[in-house]
Amino acid sequence: MSRILVKASTHEYFISIGKGIRFALHERMAKTYSTIMIITDESVASLYLNDVKNNFKEERLVEAIIPVGEKSKRMDQYEKLQTIAIENGLDRHSLIIALGGGVVGDLAGFVAATFLRGVDYIQIPTTILAHDSSVGGKVAINHERGKNLIGSFYAPQAVIYDVETLSSLPTHEVRSGYAELLKEALISNNDFLQKIMNTRVTSVSNDVLQEHLQEGIKVKAAIVEADEKEASVRMYLNLGHTLGHALEADLGYGVLTHGEAIAIGLLFSLRVSEQTLQTSLPYDAVYNWLINNDYPIHLDHFNIDQLIHHMKRDKKVVNEHIQMVLLQAIGEPVIVEIQDGDLRMYLQSFKEELVK
Amino acid sequence: MSRILVKASTHEYFISIGKGIRFALHERMAKTYSTIMIITDESVASLYLNDVKNNFKEERLVEAIIPVGEKSKRMDQYEKLQTIAIENGLDRHSLIIALGGGVVGDLAGFVAATFLRGVDYIQIPTTILAHDSSVGGKVAINHERGKNLIGSFYAPQAVIYDVETLSSLPTHEVRSGYAELLKEALISNNDFLQKIMNTRVTSVSNDVLQEHLQEGIKVKAAIVEADEKEASVRMYLNLGHTLGHALEADLGYGVLTHGEAIAIGLLFSLRVSEQTLQTSLPYDAVYNWLINNDYPIHLDHFNIDQLIHHMKRDKKVVNEHIQMVLLQAIGEPVIVEIQDGDLRMYLQSFKEELVK
Repeated sequence: MSRILVKASTHEYFISIGKGIRFALHERMAKTYSTIMIITDESVASLYLNDVKNNFKEERLVEAIIPVGEKSKRMDQYEKLQTIAIENGLDRHSLIIALGGGVVGDLAGFVAATFLRGVDYIQIPTTILAHDSSVGGKVAINHERGKNLIGSFYAPQAVIYDVETLSSLPTHEVRSGYAELLKEALISNNDFLQKIMNTRVTSVSNDVLQEHLQEGIKVKAAIVEADEKEASVRMYLNLGHTLGHALEADLGYGVLTHGEAIAIGLLFSLRVSEQTLQTSLPYDAVYNWLINNDYPIHLDHFNIDQLIHHMKRDKKVVNEHIQMVLLQAIGEPVIVEIQDGDLRMYLQSFKEELVK
Repeated sequence: MSRILVKASTHEYFISIGKGIRFALHERMAKTYSTIMIITDESVASLYLNDVKNNFKEERLVEAIIPVGEKSKRMDQYEKLQTIAIENGLDRHSLIIALGGGVVGDLAGFVAATFLRGVDYIQIPTTILAHDSSVGGKVAINHERGKNLIGSFYAPQAVIYDVETLSSLPTHEVRSGYAELLKEALISNNDFLQKIMNTRVTSVSNDVLQEHLQEGIKVKAAIVEADEKEASVRMYLNLGHTLGHALEADLGYGVLTHGEAIAIGLLFSLRVSEQTLQTSLPYDAVYNWLINNDYPIHLDHFNIDQLIHHMKRDKKVVNEHIQMVLLQAIGEPVIVEIQDGDLRMYLQSFKEELVK
């Protein structure tokens, strides 16, 4: 078991990573609560809800099980969860537990951030992808015009990451999660990148996975400590996300997994970095790694106008100009404002490489 | 013109109070913004929207005009405003201005708190009542089960209070606003209380009103600085609100103004204080002042079961027990947990005094 301390602006909290720690939650909670509301989704509920509930014999428990998938991260589901919290008498001294992947974490975290102007919550991520979203207090729901447009910065009281829960993940979820690990490697250091490049995601061992997760979380935690509200360096974590989010929105959420979309976005950011910053980056190595690990990077639908339209809805847009995270080198991210005409040109040549 | 500095946990901001200051907003803003979205309601828009817009010749302006009244402080209107912000390309460097009373301030503030995880906003209150809600960063929308159940603590960048805008207020709004001033007097000091007791709200001069507002805002600002997140002393500001909010919810929002409901709640808290804490308080003086100023305190509908039901939805409820703010003396508020049976008894005798 390892622990990583995160200093948020409002309080400090630990990220615990280990095997079987979902059975010992109390010792990772700084206080006790009279009522605990567990928010999870249908598929995680069938696997781990009872394990989590068994920690709380003394407390009043409320459970809310949402449908699987990105479509739950919407205003109507957010309002439903608020109603459940109210109807079950949760008060300001209650706790919300987010048990699941990024959708559950983002949604339950935003409910916690805004229920009675804020109650405590704990993240128990059950996907690799959620190692990223569960750390740093970004919580949100989607708007039909774009992802995560409505939300808060609201740090959890703890992140409790039981890597045993990752063994139940289907391959495409492992793949999706590794895209964010790849991102963290690209913005931090070449050693980490080489470890990822030497990994076959379909057959990674639990120990190697745990090591990669710890390394990725350390990268993430250091960045959110330095810039919790995304005024500067936290933006680097959006490497690959400008195109990635636009692809998700354009294709319809759920066609690609988040990580699959980000994988394509990372490749694009490497290409644009090379073209804009006259630098040399391991585009081919990353491309080959993605192909070898069956990332679906060859799209048959790639509508440039629509993608630019979606990119303009990105939260990092300033005065309607798209700000992209690019790399001067591995571990050296920068923010570059990209003109629409240039962006169109880059997308056009990227499309010719990718769409087959 | 006077200024009061408030130190919030995230930043400091000024409350400016003066005549005609709506025409000079730039000098009260710490920075400039590319896009400004003004949220106001139909009645305030016809009076002051142009005055505010004329400050911003250089900026891109977006306006959103909502229907008058508490019914706008709901999830559907909140979502509409988010959509307007998105469709008009507001980014993280944009500003939201809340121009209006408490409904506009609470709603627009919650939009600002959660749009793209938070953008700057400024409160320009146009009612007396809003001297209270515009200071301290409490923003929220209502849920059908209770007031302000969904919201955030999110401090504004400035509060710009042009007392000229108060001259257009109808009498029942002046009355409503003075109820919160009465509350601030009751929890702070007897001199302030005597000033209120010597005021006839229907014929108060602009200068006297400004003096009372400054005094009330100072009480409020000192409390929110000491306890921004309402963990302790900020709860004192809820004197009269336990019953007040329940009355509003039970009668249907808009039957009584907020202040009229709070006036009855204040009277109730004085009575319960006397009964619970064996203290002597100016119940009769406050009762007579309310009568003399035409507060509608004689209700013909006062359903005790329903009122207790609504009180249980209060945000200060702990383990389903109602926490009331009471007074040991003028300027000495305390929090007291009230048992349901006692509460029922107090409400019953209060009903007999009031319902005629």
